[in-house]
Amino acid sequence: MNNTYQRIVLAARPQGEVTPDLFRLETVPLPELADGQLLIRNHYLSLDPYMRGRMDDARSYAAPQPLDETMIGGTVGEVVASRHPSFREGDFVAAMGGWAEMAVSDGAGLRKLDTSAVPLSAYLGVVGMPGMTAWYGLNRILELQPGQTVCVSAASGAVGSVVGQLAKLRGCRAVGIAGGPEKCDYVVRELGFDACVDYRGGDLRGDLKAAAPDGIDGIFENVGGPVFDTALARTNPFARVALCGMIAGYNGEDIPLRSVRVLLKNRITLRGFIVTEHLDCWPQGLAELGSLVAAGQLKYRETVSQGLASAPEAFIGLLKGRNVGKQLVKLV
Amino acid sequence: MNNTYQRIVLAARPQGEVTPDLFRLETVPLPELADGQLLIRNHYLSLDPYMRGRMDDARSYAAPQPLDETMIGGTVGEVVASRHPSFREGDFVAAMGGWAEMAVSDGAGLRKLDTSAVPLSAYLGVVGMPGMTAWYGLNRILELQPGQTVCVSAASGAVGSVVGQLAKLRGCRAVGIAGGPEKCDYVVRELGFDACVDYRGGDLRGDLKAAAPDGIDGIFENVGGPVFDTALARTNPFARVALCGMIAGYNGEDIPLRSVRVLLKNRITLRGFIVTEHLDCWPQGLAELGSLVAAGQLKYRETVSQGLASAPEAFIGLLKGRNVGKQLVKLV
Repeated sequence: MNNTYQRIVLAARPQGEVTPDLFRLETVPLPELADGQLLIRNHYLSLDPYMRGRMDDARSYAAPQPLDETMIGGTVGEVVASRHPSFREGDFVAAMGGWAEMAVSDGAGLRKLDTSAVPLSAYLGVVGMPGMTAWYGLNRILELQPGQTVCVSAASGAVGSVVGQLAKLRGCRAVGIAGGPEKCDYVVRELGFDACVDYRGGDLRGDLKAAAPDGIDGIFENVGGPVFDTALARTNPFARVALCGMIAGYNGEDIPLRSVRVLLKNRITLRGFIVTEHLDCWPQGLAELGSLVAAGQLKYRETVSQGLASAPEAFIGLLKGRNVGKQLVKLV
Repeated sequence: MNNTYQRIVLAARPQGEVTPDLFRLETVPLPELADGQLLIRNHYLSLDPYMRGRMDDARSYAAPQPLDETMIGGTVGEVVASRHPSFREGDFVAAMGGWAEMAVSDGAGLRKLDTSAVPLSAYLGVVGMPGMTAWYGLNRILELQPGQTVCVSAASGAVGSVVGQLAKLRGCRAVGIAGGPEKCDYVVRELGFDACVDYRGGDLRGDLKAAAPDGIDGIFENVGGPVFDTALARTNPFARVALCGMIAGYNGEDIPLRSVRVLLKNRITLRGFIVTEHLDCWPQGLAELGSLVAAGQLKYRETVSQGLASAPEAFIGLLKGRNVGKQLVKLV
């Protein structure tokens, strides 16, 4: 084994858009394992919108990413050395290994993975945090009845794609919103949504009306801004909103919500949530998601970029919506 | 008894601000009572912000006010003739009698009133719909714990004044927002709020920070717009919002919400509500409110204008925030 590994650190905080020069690729020495520690070779790194928020030095629910330290990130990998009683060489684990080829862990927060029926990379997506985000918002916030309509923005993404499929499995009408005909086609033909509206199509309002003729009973919001406004305007009375993301505002600009009165007029319940605060739901949710993937009832796509050095550009692509499905970086 | 009475009808729909010429005072004949009907002499007419919404011909949770018909409105009055088995002359009742001196009713929706310990007019305010609005939002949506901080806009108004006093009774810190030093003074000295911020004072953000040093756990929102934005920016994680009114937008203009990201960042739960949809809570709520008024534990003020003809100007004053406490029109 090499006695160095590569990692990417945050070199500077963004002023507006994220650019590649904010990151720095470094080669660092592999530390000695202490008693109770283990060494993981990361196979896949997960790239997620929340990372944009951490890059800022702002008051938030989470501490900011420190400068000159390994960028935060979820990983799946293989234990390659262990001085920990519960893990041994060859175990596959999910961890917060960061943007790095290797990670040292004391076992805290690690999850052992069964790769016999579910591919390793799926544990970063449909059977990982994005899948659980979809599961929690749908089951614990929207609580839709069969026949009701759910509207999901960023529908081709890692979270949105699961929301729509789970909604279909419970007998709802699933309407997606995505950018461009290719993504919309994927959402309807491959994922089985009832309809998908291209928000770049020029008539978002009219297209959404046609896609949700009976109105919208639940919004799973991943984007914010005008897309959210348009969905709110189509809500039925007592609609519910699971507020999961505001990717449109990740560059720091405030994107106001124009349809405030509809929140009152339609007696809407809106809840912002962070799925990692509801870990008590994870065992149930991950078991359900894993079974659905193993049974072929939950489809997903991955956009995989190759090699650690590709992570910054892949992350920028994610923020610009260039990926389809879960954005990963393959490290091994 | 005179065989005519006066009423006010909506003559035209507003284009922007409400003006007196949108209303018309009419003298109309008193109808004959049919079997099962009763005649009420209205003593007080309630003026409420929701009436502004009804004046528009827009899709809403309620039908628009028809043109050339008696303006909708809650009233309290005395039965002066009855051919209804459950009501007799001299009974005091709460009704939706409208902007009129007299009202014919078939008894549906009438509430008999006990005026021995609670003044008649209070049944339109603190022991009526505004009181119940406060009670419902506080008890069923905000659900605050002792020691938590509630922020109430339009704090000197019919709803806001009750919110803060009920919050104090359950051991919360009550912070009001109102327009002008006179109203703020009333809110703190007479109603017993811990603090009241004058939103015209020039430093709403700083003043609210000083008034709510531990942050805000619950917002009872009666206004919307920049006042709501500023309160949201001071919320603690997991704060709750009872969205009751958007008076700032009643002239038809959209007032955007700028602090959308804070809904996600602080995992806020927001709920819009209409208290008349929760009639199952009214018996419990009204009993509690009546007892508190009778015991002198719930204070209120009324702004009373004299005579039916004064209703349009009084209503415009209400929309501009000129009233303190419940706005009434005294008809008898």
